[in-house]
Amino acid sequence: MNYPNKKEHTNKTYIEYGNRGMTLESDINSSNKYYLDNDIAIIHKKPTPTKVIKLEGNRIKDGFYEIPSTTDYNGLYKGKYIDFEAKETRSKTSFPLNNIHKHQIVHLIKINEHGGISFIIIRFTSLNKTFLIFAKDFVNYFKNNDKKSIPLSYIEENGYLIKDGYNPIVDYLKIVDKFI
Amino acid sequence: MNYPNKKEHTNKTYIEYGNRGMTLESDINSSNKYYLDNDIAIIHKKPTPTKVIKLEGNRIKDGFYEIPSTTDYNGLYKGKYIDFEAKETRSKTSFPLNNIHKHQIVHLIKINEHGGISFIIIRFTSLNKTFLIFAKDFVNYFKNNDKKSIPLSYIEENGYLIKDGYNPIVDYLKIVDKFI
Repeated sequence: MNYPNKKEHTNKTYIEYGNRGMTLESDINSSNKYYLDNDIAIIHKKPTPTKVIKLEGNRIKDGFYEIPSTTDYNGLYKGKYIDFEAKETRSKTSFPLNNIHKHQIVHLIKINEHGGISFIIIRFTSLNKTFLIFAKDFVNYFKNNDKKSIPLSYIEENGYLIKDGYNPIVDYLKIVDKFI
Repeated sequence: MNYPNKKEHTNKTYIEYGNRGMTLESDINSSNKYYLDNDIAIIHKKPTPTKVIKLEGNRIKDGFYEIPSTTDYNGLYKGKYIDFEAKETRSKTSFPLNNIHKHQIVHLIKINEHGGISFIIIRFTSLNKTFLIFAKDFVNYFKNNDKKSIPLSYIEENGYLIKDGYNPIVDYLKIVDKFI
């Protein structure tokens, strides 16, 4: 399981895990800031849920991270509800599904059924390639439920390559435009 | 300032503050669960953002609550993006604006401009009345920027009374239906 912000919180963990999961996240956060500042879209990262056990005044003195009930990002673009998860993998051949919770996949598929635009952004760090795959295009893949990963070939065929940019760095809304 | 979940976390604070801010929140959470279970809408409360200073293994050993950058609730209903804040007040005559951050008001107005449906749910606990007021209907009130509260009369005139129900307890989507 992969708790999105864990690496940021202590230097020790940061050094151990290196950039894994951080670069894509910070690239997307900065792209979302660009969209917001330019009044293009209002998309935010949700805070990581925490269970607080002990509170002293305003300080949390004991607690832990909880499993998010939905996805990391959601918001509004051209009047449409946007919802997605963003993940990195070092694999060169497939996206391992232990990277993402099953209920998050279910959530993304449900959003698609209710008229929202939902997808996963997957970065293959070793290949330096970032893809977007819409829930509507991976829903059939999950019909057969015991999958352990999504092959890169499936993602290449059913998803879209997001070209690196300067600002925004990850211009994923350009891909979303194809869908609207 | 009002940090939504603070009261839940220690018995001491819970006793001190009594029900303030909790009843409406739990009523809305249970209504959202009803909407979700019955496949009517997918609306979730966002986690309260926390800044973690010290992490030992999986345990948070020092941290604090941060001011949310957006609102408490958002999601998807009938293909529409929904975004709102929910607040209680003990006042019988007005909704004090120190209950809500200015940037949250700005966020709600921006959502409205981008084609989303945004509103505040306000419960007057002493009157036992819960209202919904859409951002489109309070935007003019905030044009003149130095307001300290919204009078109840303004809310009665420009908002909608949400009738108490059994399940969902706070059927705010019935009001949203008027807007779609």
